[in-house]
Amino acid sequence: MDRLPDSALVLVPGGTLITDTPEEGRALAMLMARHTIHNIQPNLEVLKKGRKIYSVNPDSLIAAGQVVAIEFQTVAAANNYWKQCYYRKEDM
Amino acid sequence: MDRLPDSALVLVPGGTLITDTPEEGRALAMLMARHTIHNIQPNLEVLKKGRKIYSVNPDSLIAAGQVVAIEFQTVAAANNYWKQCYYRKEDM
Amino acid sequence: MDRLPDSALVLVPGGTLITDTPEEGRALAMLMARHTIHNIQPNLEVLKKGRKIYSVNPDSLIAAGQVVAIEFQTVAAANNYWKQCYYRKEDM
Amino acid sequence: MDRLPDSALVLVPGGTLITDTPEEGRALAMLMARHTIHNIQPNLEVLKKGRKIYSVNPDSLIAAGQVVAIEFQTVAAANNYWKQCYYRKEDM
Amino acid sequence: MDRLPDSALVLVPGGTLITDTPEEGRALAMLMARHTIHNIQPNLEVLKKGRKIYSVNPDSLIAAGQVVAIEFQTVAAANNYWKQCYYRKEDM
Amino acid sequence: MDRLPDSALVLVPGGTLITDTPEEGRALAMLMARHTIHNIQPNLEVLKKGRKIYSVNPDSLIAAGQVVAIEFQTVAAANNYWKQCYYRKEDM
Repeated sequence: MDRLPDSALVLVPGGTLITDTPEEGRALAMLMARHTIHNIQPNLEVLKKGRKIYSVNPDSLIAAGQVVAIEFQTVAAANNYWKQCYYRKEDM
Repeated sequence: MDRLPDSALVLVPGGTLITDTPEEGRALAMLMARHTIHNIQPNLEVLKKGRKIYSVNPDSLIAAGQVVAIEFQTVAAANNYWKQCYYRKEDM
Repeated sequence: MDRLPDSALVLVPGGTLITDTPEEGRALAMLMARHTIHNIQPNLEVLKKGRKIYSVNPDSLIAAGQVVAIEFQTVAAANNYWKQCYYRKEDM
Repeated sequence: MDRLPDSALVLVPGGTLITDTPEEGRALAMLMARHTIHNIQPNLEVLKKGRKIYSVNPDSLIAAGQVVAIEFQTVAAANNYWKQCYYRKEDM
Repeated sequence: MDRLPDSALVLVPGGTLITDTPEEGRALAMLMARHTIHNIQPNLEVLKKGRKIYSVNPDSLIAAGQVVAIEFQTVAAANNYWKQCYYRKEDM
Repeated sequence: MDRLPDSALVLVPGGTLITDTPEEGRALAMLMARHTIHNIQPNLEVLKKGRKIYSVNPDSLIAAGQVVAIEFQTVAAANNYWKQCYYRKEDM
């Protein structure tokens, strides 16, 4: 069996929800979504077969996008929406 | 392979969740939803084929609308719902 | 091509999430949900065909209802759930 | 055409999200979910046909239950989860 | 017709979202999810038939699990995540 | 009948939503999602059959990932997003 390496199974890569920028937070959201699936199905062969199916199916892509949107809600809240950079402290 | 340009792969276009108006916040929500999918499937040819399918399927359109609604929850919270313009400070 | 008028493409009709009543907030939630789909698919002919399909399919109607419920969460939070009318200020 | 009466089209029946008890809040959540669908599809004949389909389909029932769960999140937050009755004021 | 007893139709069993423990809160979330469906479809015969279908279908089980997860968000928030037991008051 | 052991039926394993790290919180989210399904369908034979189906179906895996994302929102909020370690107290 072609099992994923341990690094692909870390549930919260980096060990924290706090990121410097929204862009990094979004990347973390995508990574967490992927690693959850890796933990449910760690067989690389099966994942590759699945990728061929869902990555060309618009409904699957929309569903995958929804999972990322939900993960990002959590990451964004954890970072207080990275507002610090835009509002003065007394406005928060 | 016809790969999307880098600009279409930025996860949080503009690098911030803060926008001046709800309208811009909503546009950002749509853009983030799209760019997530671009990152999962960056092949333009495949995306165009997919568009022909989902854009005429009401269930797919409803699902796409749901993703935008979820992204917008995050953007709206980040902007404190753009309430500043409507309530006086002491009412917030 | 029979394209929707610009007014049907405004993402946040009225330009604000703040409404006077829950009823108006709910109407805004429905409108935002619709206008998102208008922006993804602005062809009136295609939308009309889609309506014939989803409007008689109970699962599609439930899915559409779910999108409205999610949009309404945002609008309701923006309006602090219109609580002002029911609780005295010092209770908020 | 057999159109629903106006009362079935009110989006927020009662005009407020505030209720006395969780039970009433839950009933309101169900009613809002239903009335959204009434507004999308106000033809009673079509709705009755739809009911025959979705009400015996477990997946449709689960989906309907999900919409109610989402609506209830909003109603429960609006009522501060009806905590007042259980915690003393200074604990809130 | 084999109708469910009234006790299975109570929308918020116990009449409150407040529970002593996370375990009880989770049980309440499951119960609320079930009772919603009971209210939409109170015929025991139909529910039993439905159970035979969805309880052996992994996609239905995942969907049911999602509803419980959403209900639990509400119950957990209502109970302030049962944090009291773990943090000292001044840390909350 | 091959019934799951009681330990697989605990709804909130560990009896608390509070965890030391995001990684443990994520693991708890996955466990809660699984144990909900165990409670709906406690027959091990049926669950094993289901696993063979959903674990090789990308759409099922995406749906399962979505449930985990929702559970994690609750666990992360319960832990105040484990922010303590990253911000000084006066910044929270």
